[in-house]
Parts: sequence; C-alpha cells; structure tokens
Amino acid sequence: MEGDPTLQLRIFDLNCWAIRYLSKRRQERVQLIGDMLLREGFDLVLLQEVWSERDYNDLKAKLRGCYPFSHYFRSGVIGSGLCVFSRFPILDTLLYQYSLNGYPYMLQHGDWFCGKSVGLLVIKISGIIFNVYVTHLHAEYCREKDAYLPHRLVQAWELAQFIRHTSKAADVVLLGGDLNMHPEDTGIRLLRGWTGLRDAFTEATHFECEELKTTTGTAPGMDIPFSDHEAVMATLRIRRQGRAADATLGTAELTLADVVTEARTEVGLGLRAAQRQRFSTGRMAVLALLLLLLQAAAALGTLAGLAAGQPFPKLSFSLLAFLAIGVLLLATGLHLFHTMEVKMLQGTEEQMRMALRALQERA
Amino acid sequence: MEGDPTLQLRIFDLNCWAIRYLSKRRQERVQLIGDMLLREGFDLVLLQEVWSERDYNDLKAKLRGCYPFSHYFRSGVIGSGLCVFSRFPILDTLLYQYSLNGYPYMLQHGDWFCGKSVGLLVIKISGIIFNVYVTHLHAEYCREKDAYLPHRLVQAWELAQFIRHTSKAADVVLLGGDLNMHPEDTGIRLLRGWTGLRDAFTEATHFECEELKTTTGTAPGMDIPFSDHEAVMATLRIRRQGRAADATLGTAELTLADVVTEARTEVGLGLRAAQRQRFSTGRMAVLALLLLLLQAAAALGTLAGLAAGQPFPKLSFSLLAFLAIGVLLLATGLHLFHTMEVKMLQGTEEQMRMALRALQERA
Repeated sequence: MEGDPTLQLRIFDLNCWAIRYLSKRRQERVQLIGDMLLREGFDLVLLQEVWSERDYNDLKAKLRGCYPFSHYFRSGVIGSGLCVFSRFPILDTLLYQYSLNGYPYMLQHGDWFCGKSVGLLVIKISGIIFNVYVTHLHAEYCREKDAYLPHRLVQAWELAQFIRHTSKAADVVLLGGDLNMHPEDTGIRLLRGWTGLRDAFTEATHFECEELKTTTGTAPGMDIPFSDHEAVMATLRIRRQGRAADATLGTAELTLADVVTEARTEVGLGLRAAQRQRFSTGRMAVLALLLLLLQAAAALGTLAGLAAGQPFPKLSFSLLAFLAIGVLLLATGLHLFHTMEVKMLQGTEEQMRMALRALQERA
Repeated sequence: MEGDPTLQLRIFDLNCWAIRYLSKRRQERVQLIGDMLLREGFDLVLLQEVWSERDYNDLKAKLRGCYPFSHYFRSGVIGSGLCVFSRFPILDTLLYQYSLNGYPYMLQHGDWFCGKSVGLLVIKISGIIFNVYVTHLHAEYCREKDAYLPHRLVQAWELAQFIRHTSKAADVVLLGGDLNMHPEDTGIRLLRGWTGLRDAFTEATHFECEELKTTTGTAPGMDIPFSDHEAVMATLRIRRQGRAADATLGTAELTLADVVTEARTEVGLGLRAAQRQRFSTGRMAVLALLLLLLQAAAALGTLAGLAAGQPFPKLSFSLLAFLAIGVLLLATGLHLFHTMEVKMLQGTEEQMRMALRALQERA
C-alpha cells in the first residue's frame, strides 16, 4: 500500500449467536465462520456474541496465520461477547461498560448478565490512525411495546459520548456491531448526529464505500447459516482529505437538537417508570420489615408469658418469618437496583439537557 | 486575560466527608466549605464525597453567583460523590465507572455501593482546552495488609487509560481527587508514567506551579475542620508551548515497564485470590443444592410411604430447607460476583501485558 494515496480495508462484522448450551449447532457454526474468515482474508473482523472464551481461543488458534492480532473484551458475569481479529497490530484497547443494561430478574432475557459494552481498538495502517469500535446494545424483544427502549437510548448516548471523547486523535472512526435498532430509530439518529458518523449500509453509495454485502441465509454449500443474524462485509476506500465530520455537525444542528429532545423524552419516560419501581420495591421492603417486627414482638410476648392464649403454631410462625426475610432481602435488592437505575437515567437526562443547550447556543 | 500569553488558574480540591447520617457535623461543615469557596473565589472547585444530592444543590444555590457552572456525577447506589463548580462554562462531561470497586458484602467499608468513578469535564478558557478529571479511588483500610490493592490498581490503570484515550485533543490535562495512595505507591507511579502527568504536590517547584497549599486542621476561627481530609489549593500558570508529555514518556519507557510489571504482579495476586473465592463460593452453592435435593428425595420418599420409620420433625426439616435455600442463593450471588471480578482482573492483566509489549518494542 506504500505510495498509494488510497487505502483499501475489508471489514467483516457478525453477531455469531454463540451462546453456550443454548445456541443451536454452535460449535459447527463457529467452525464454519472460522473457515470462511480464513478463506476470505479480511483486514478486520468484528464479532459479537462470542460468549464462550473457549470459542474465542479456538478461533484465535485457527486464524493465527491470517489474522495475527486479536482481542477479547471481558465484562459482566458472562462476558461482553465482543472480540476482534486483525491483520494489523492492535496498538491499544479500552472497554466502556454501559451503565444500564436491563434487569437482573429478567432471567428469560438475560442481557443484564452479559455486561454489554463498547470496545475500542486503536490500529495504525500506513500512518493512518483508526479508532475501531465494536459494540452490542440491549436486545429489542418487542418493537411495539419495548420496555428496554430507555436503557437502549442511554446506551446509544453513552456510545456516542464515548466515541466523541476518545476519537479526537483518530484519522478514521469505524463503528461495527449489533445496535439492535433500525436505521431511522431515535437511537441511531442520535448516534449519527452526535458523532458525525455515517451509516455505511444506507449511505454506501454517497462516500465511496467500495463494496457492501451481507450473507443471505445458509452458508454456501451447507444446510446451516453462520448465525441467526446476517454478516455485513464492507470494502472501504480511505483517502486522505480534510475533516468532514465537524462540517456535517455544523449544518445539521437543529435537526440534531430535535433528535436529542426526542431521546430525552424517552429517557424521561424510563425515569418515571424506574422511580415508580423504586417506590413500590421500597414499600414492599418496609412492609416485610414491619411484619418481621410484629412477629418478633409476638414471639417476645409469648416468651415473657404476656400472651394469655395459646402461642402460634411453631411451623407456620417460622415459615412466615422466613418468607418475610426472603421478601425483605429481595425487595431491598430490587430497591437498590432501581435506585441505581434512577440515578443513571437522571444523569443521562441531564447530559442531554446540557447537549441541547450547547446545540441551541451554537445554532 | 485577553492578550496575556500566560493564564492563571486557581484550583481547589477536597474530599468533603459529607456522608449522610454518618459524618459528624456534616451540614455545618458543608456550609463552612461553601462560605470559604465564596470568599476565596477559585476558578475551579473539585469535590469528592458529596454523597447527598441535597448538599450539592445547597452548594449550587449558594455558589451560583461566583461559580455559575457546576456538575454532579451520578453513579452506583449512593452516587459517585463527585461534583465540580466552575467559573467557566463546562462544555462537555463524561463519566467512567471503574469495573472493580470492593465487595458488596463488606458493608462496614461500603465502597462498593458508591460506584466509584472518574468524571471528565471539558472547559475552554481563552482558547485553551482543559480536560479536567475528578476521581475517588477505593479507600485503603490497612496499609500493611491491603486486601483492596488489586482493585485499586485496576482503578488506577483504568483511570490512566481513560485519561490517555480521552485527552488527545486537550491542551491541558488536570487530575484532581482522592486517589487513596501515597506519592510513591505503584498505582501513582503507574498513573504518572502511563499518562505523562506530573504530581503538582511533589513536583510543584519544577514546573511553575505558582502556589500550592493545603488546609491545616480546623477551619480559620472555628473549632471544626472542613473535613476529615485536608484541602489542596493550587495556583497554576499555563503558558502555550510544545507538547512535553510524549517526550517524558519516551525517556522513561524502561522505568515505566518496571512499574507496569509491578502493578501486573499485584493484579495477578488479586486474580488468584478472586479465583479461589469463585471456586469456594461455587462449591458452597453446589453443596447447598445437594442438601436440598437430598431433602426433596427424603420428603418424596416419606410422601410415597417408602420410609419405614418416623419422618423428620417438620419444623427442623423446614428450617433446614430454608437454610439451604438461603445458602444456595447467597453462594450463587457471590459466585457470580467473583466471576465478574475474575474477568475484570484477567482483562486488566491482559491489557497490561499488551502495554508491556508495546513499551518493550519501543525501547
């Protein structure tokens, strides 16, 4: 590439659906993905949902020749699921874990346990500094009644802020991953507007993105797909020129203010819901505590011989006490959790308010 | 300051010890701090342990005239305790919560509940961009046998990485806060070496730090101090010149490699301890589960009339079952927590390994 003013970069991005014990034909598919990556020889591979570190290590061993550099981002109980393979040396990494990511008691959804994050890699190719971001936001389980929308918007906002603050020295910013949003959703518009990034999928024809394709269904010549998601493959042509991102930001400030307002309204709704949850779990904890105190008073009364009649049957008395302790612990835990949730939603709402003021002042 | 090639900045930093219900004469002291800040008129005030949002709001209302801009960083159950007051507009903020911060069951220490973080503020004065960081790391309860050292080192590393990645466009980087370390501790040397920052306290005479003083004991003319910590007040003189940080980093690479190795060894020790904890809590959960299964089998046997003799007394049987359930839940929770701890320590160890390789290659 020396002497060539433009640089070609082939990128592969896939949510691998490699959940241990749960994803169908996982090992077979991970092997297929590895084979394909070896065959195609991309420059940069961004993967999500590689939850098992063993799968990552298997891929790493297999791809060592073609992709000598790799990184696995660890976080949460299960992990972030994020990893990257690269033909070029990875100079530095940083992980930012989103402050909100669903609820621990929504076991059937399980996002909370994954520690959803954004990983940053710094790569230098032919003197050009690339900041590559890979992320996975909270899943959308029901588009019509999406209870996780405020959390996903907080994540989109934190992602945008993280990119803005960490990419100041980068020549090229690339974001890949599974955002769990449609191109025109508030979160995507917020992300685009606030960072100046452009969507390689919808705007491919406008800035020389050389080629962009996705997988379609099953793997070539096989009866199974690579994943329950389709992969995105893009060939980017990078040419040295003036910085365009700021200009884009300048012309679209009013539209951006609308998007931030929209996002802030949603975050506000989430805040109200979280406050209600905090209140009701707190009330539940207080009631359980009162019941326990009542029982303690009754027991003490019986011991002191104050009670005239027969004491309560021991078994149901103990069971009730244990139940009250259980409810007290659970409700207190939930109350603490929703207190954190309220704080993070308030913090995001305030940051958005600050952003709006800055946007309005500039406009 | 227009036309003046140097710029003077007066900064105040204090851990306020303003813990609701626990800190002695809290409201009185917060009022004293507010009075002093009004009287002295600093440019920038960095506070820690302002745990109560009401205290922040009181200070904000009081200082509005002198410090029109302020920010409170929210995180964790209780909050980050971090806030700032500024004479100059705050252009942007970002919060990074440390991935490790003590243990939820160490209630007597309570650090875990605070969501210890680093807050970033971007401020522009006379065209100079300041990245101001305020933080509070995990407390040191016993210097001789410091069980939290690995966690504090992970925090120091994350702080250094956060500063490096977010300060690329800044002209001046300022870090204030309560690091809970001595000037020559591994964490401080790691932070200094890895970011190129210099310690205004120990090196004040070497770079024109105009004035540096601390409070001493009680507030002037009063019988109480401002806090259980002393405040640091510095007057910095900032002059435009070439970037020195990179050069500093270049000359000290081998020393820095030693510091990173030292820190990595400590993190490794913490990792081994966390792995042992993860194992023993996991074993405990399995034992509790086995006991429950045994009880279930015995109960079913009795119901089916298989048991020849008398069944167990109902009360102790139920109590034992509840105990087993309690232990199972607690041990599972702890196991999940230590799994996360292991992951974060592993992640930091690997990042440090990567940093060492880069340092050795450069040297």
